[in-house]
Amino acid sequence: MSTQVSAYIDSNKDRFLEELKTFLKIPSVSTLPEHKPDIEQASEFVAAKLRAAGMEKVERIPTAGHPLIYGEWVAAPGKPTVLCYGHYDVQPPDPLEEWVTPPFEPSIRNDNLYARGSSDDKGQMYIHVKAAEALLRAHGALPVNVKFLIEGEEEVGGLAVDKYVKQNAEKLRCDVALISDTEMFAPDLPTLCIGLRGLVYTELIATGAAQDLHSGMYGGAAPNPLMGLIRIISRLQTPDYRIQIPGFYDNVEPPTPEEKASWARLPFDEKEFLQKEVGSPCLVGEEGFEVLERLWARPTLEVHGLVGGFQGEGAKTVIPAKASAKVSMRLVPRQDPQKILAAFEKQVEQLTPPGLRVQVKMLSTAEAVLMSPTHPYLQAAVESLTGTFRKPTVFIRAGGSIPIVARFQDSLGVPVVLMGFGLPDDRLHSPNEKFYLPNFFDGIRAVTQFWENLAEAEP
Amino acid sequence: MSTQVSAYIDSNKDRFLEELKTFLKIPSVSTLPEHKPDIEQASEFVAAKLRAAGMEKVERIPTAGHPLIYGEWVAAPGKPTVLCYGHYDVQPPDPLEEWVTPPFEPSIRNDNLYARGSSDDKGQMYIHVKAAEALLRAHGALPVNVKFLIEGEEEVGGLAVDKYVKQNAEKLRCDVALISDTEMFAPDLPTLCIGLRGLVYTELIATGAAQDLHSGMYGGAAPNPLMGLIRIISRLQTPDYRIQIPGFYDNVEPPTPEEKASWARLPFDEKEFLQKEVGSPCLVGEEGFEVLERLWARPTLEVHGLVGGFQGEGAKTVIPAKASAKVSMRLVPRQDPQKILAAFEKQVEQLTPPGLRVQVKMLSTAEAVLMSPTHPYLQAAVESLTGTFRKPTVFIRAGGSIPIVARFQDSLGVPVVLMGFGLPDDRLHSPNEKFYLPNFFDGIRAVTQFWENLAEAEP
Repeated sequence: MSTQVSAYIDSNKDRFLEELKTFLKIPSVSTLPEHKPDIEQASEFVAAKLRAAGMEKVERIPTAGHPLIYGEWVAAPGKPTVLCYGHYDVQPPDPLEEWVTPPFEPSIRNDNLYARGSSDDKGQMYIHVKAAEALLRAHGALPVNVKFLIEGEEEVGGLAVDKYVKQNAEKLRCDVALISDTEMFAPDLPTLCIGLRGLVYTELIATGAAQDLHSGMYGGAAPNPLMGLIRIISRLQTPDYRIQIPGFYDNVEPPTPEEKASWARLPFDEKEFLQKEVGSPCLVGEEGFEVLERLWARPTLEVHGLVGGFQGEGAKTVIPAKASAKVSMRLVPRQDPQKILAAFEKQVEQLTPPGLRVQVKMLSTAEAVLMSPTHPYLQAAVESLTGTFRKPTVFIRAGGSIPIVARFQDSLGVPVVLMGFGLPDDRLHSPNEKFYLPNFFDGIRAVTQFWENLAEAEP
Repeated sequence: MSTQVSAYIDSNKDRFLEELKTFLKIPSVSTLPEHKPDIEQASEFVAAKLRAAGMEKVERIPTAGHPLIYGEWVAAPGKPTVLCYGHYDVQPPDPLEEWVTPPFEPSIRNDNLYARGSSDDKGQMYIHVKAAEALLRAHGALPVNVKFLIEGEEEVGGLAVDKYVKQNAEKLRCDVALISDTEMFAPDLPTLCIGLRGLVYTELIATGAAQDLHSGMYGGAAPNPLMGLIRIISRLQTPDYRIQIPGFYDNVEPPTPEEKASWARLPFDEKEFLQKEVGSPCLVGEEGFEVLERLWARPTLEVHGLVGGFQGEGAKTVIPAKASAKVSMRLVPRQDPQKILAAFEKQVEQLTPPGLRVQVKMLSTAEAVLMSPTHPYLQAAVESLTGTFRKPTVFIRAGGSIPIVARFQDSLGVPVVLMGFGLPDDRLHSPNEKFYLPNFFDGIRAVTQFWENLAEAEP
């Protein structure tokens, strides 16, 4: 990073922080209709700050839901183009009484900035905005072409941005995407997330009798859809967590020995994970796989809820006419969600007991993602992180899915740099969410350096 | 039945019917607090009619819930004592718009009296009252000692009467109990119900992690209590409906060949049962047992509902910290509910997967009931039914439990005559409940005859 950029960041730290606080004061809760004016205000704030940073063609794009914001600076011909993504909406702050200071009155304690959205994702997204400003103000130009696409529906499913990316691939054309909405594996440990699991989320709907029946009068002759779902689901997985769907594991790509070795070197304490994060009597899962491999690189099957029959207090002797279950599978690289879904449907049909009809409804699918850490653009990110935090960057994966990542890969065909500056204890979605402030400023430095490295990278 | 009694019934038919209509106009819905005054009025009606019939020591007994009514006529020394039970409370009438005529405006169409409570149980219970009146007015005495115990909480669990019987065994001392709150197997087919299944109703409460977890971040390492319950429950029963609890079938008493043969002679059409009553693609249950045997004389296991995780629309990727399931077993004669419960608890513990804790909560138990049809008091009932309806009486069982029957057996040690005059299409608990009027008058005749036969029976 040039001395001018570094000096600009240093001399504007207080203002950057004040601006972020102003941003955080806007309660832009996307799921609650009463916050619609706040959503408007937050989207206007982002657009204004992009313009102030020197970005061009900044626009607020109306959607069926909350507005998208677009901006670009594309005056670096021959250089790569990076698409920066983030979101300005936040989760609801409840339960309010558990916040030490109010969720929309940003407050600093011990170098942490406490506010809803401080880490997820206003603070991290604002890093990109300030990186653009620092470079444009210090040098009058960016080292690469930069496009911004910021959404306001990430916490409610991101439908508008997904549609927009699908329909505007030309406008959003780029060489790499940058997302800062994840976390570092440990404090001070620069981290690049290179893999995400995929997902097939289904609902099984089972019907038996024409109406609810009394288990005294009909138990022994009438089929029970809840019992049927239980039988089906129990046979989709062995007690030792092996999924029992023909062909399910056919294309599973295991992590390389190098990647597994790198996970073994991470500061991960299984006992602490069990006690502090999970809190169950013991951890579970497939034998022969370490915890991180099970979480990041092994497919899993879970049931999330069953509906039907009687769910109140006390005893009701009902055989429900209908019942349903939400069942999902996490997928790993090379597993095709559509093929998995088809195999799942077939297996459910095979397992359906006589007397019942079971329908499989697909609720969502996402492909697993795996980026090569040796890709020159990812290497550009690694070097900026390692330089900024003065420690070797570690590579991790995440067990969840980030749908926009799969969308960028599918529609834009580019690698995605998941350069997160959050910390594991940031309490996203919970009371007392915080953002570690040194990471805010180091993040701005790392992103400017990333763009400078990108300009020199050979694709 | 004496000519005097027969003549008395014939000449008072219209008044009996008018009185029943008056009774049915009182909306004594026990579950709705706003009907408390109607409950009072209905209980006063019953007490007044018992007095008018010539019963003595008639009292309304206050309880924690709705009042009980007691009355007796015990001036037949050396003769058996019969305890008549019934209830004056009714189910709510919803949905109102489906009634052809309003639920509390009794209306006669095609010999049927339409009103909420007409069959369950005001009409049937009133048979006993009018039988007592007919005998006392015609002869000035009853052939046996008769006690009445009428409750107003049958539709909401019958807590008060259960406690009262337990605490007043001496006052209620009798040789046989009479209940008219069941139905005839088919129109014109005099029916005595001699068996009921028992019940063990439990709730399984499973806990895993300390809080709800995201299935992306923790799936593969954190235990899932819903999945755990599914595994446990699925292994409590084989796919061919055999219950897998050690010792479960040890004491099961199969029906005698004679009883099975009598069931085979009942006018039961399996196809019609499937299509009109159940409506599922096929019937299910243990192979090698006919439908009626499966419903009446085989133990079953059902799951009635699961709570935990996500039950809304759409997809939420939660691994719940806690989940619960309601699981019940119907029991048959000689199965001890306490022993079954203990074996069930042990088996659940055995089946509990690592990482979870599962607690078994007992919600209710009831012993199965089986009366010998050759008992002289049951024979007295059979003869009165056969004589009144001019067809051989059939013996059936019911798959459900009637808690008061088990209570009478336990606390009073007497056989219970379940002499029902309802018909299978009476629509109890549903709109357009009705009572077939010829059965009201035949019921009065059958009950007077039963008492007369009882006076001659050798215990």
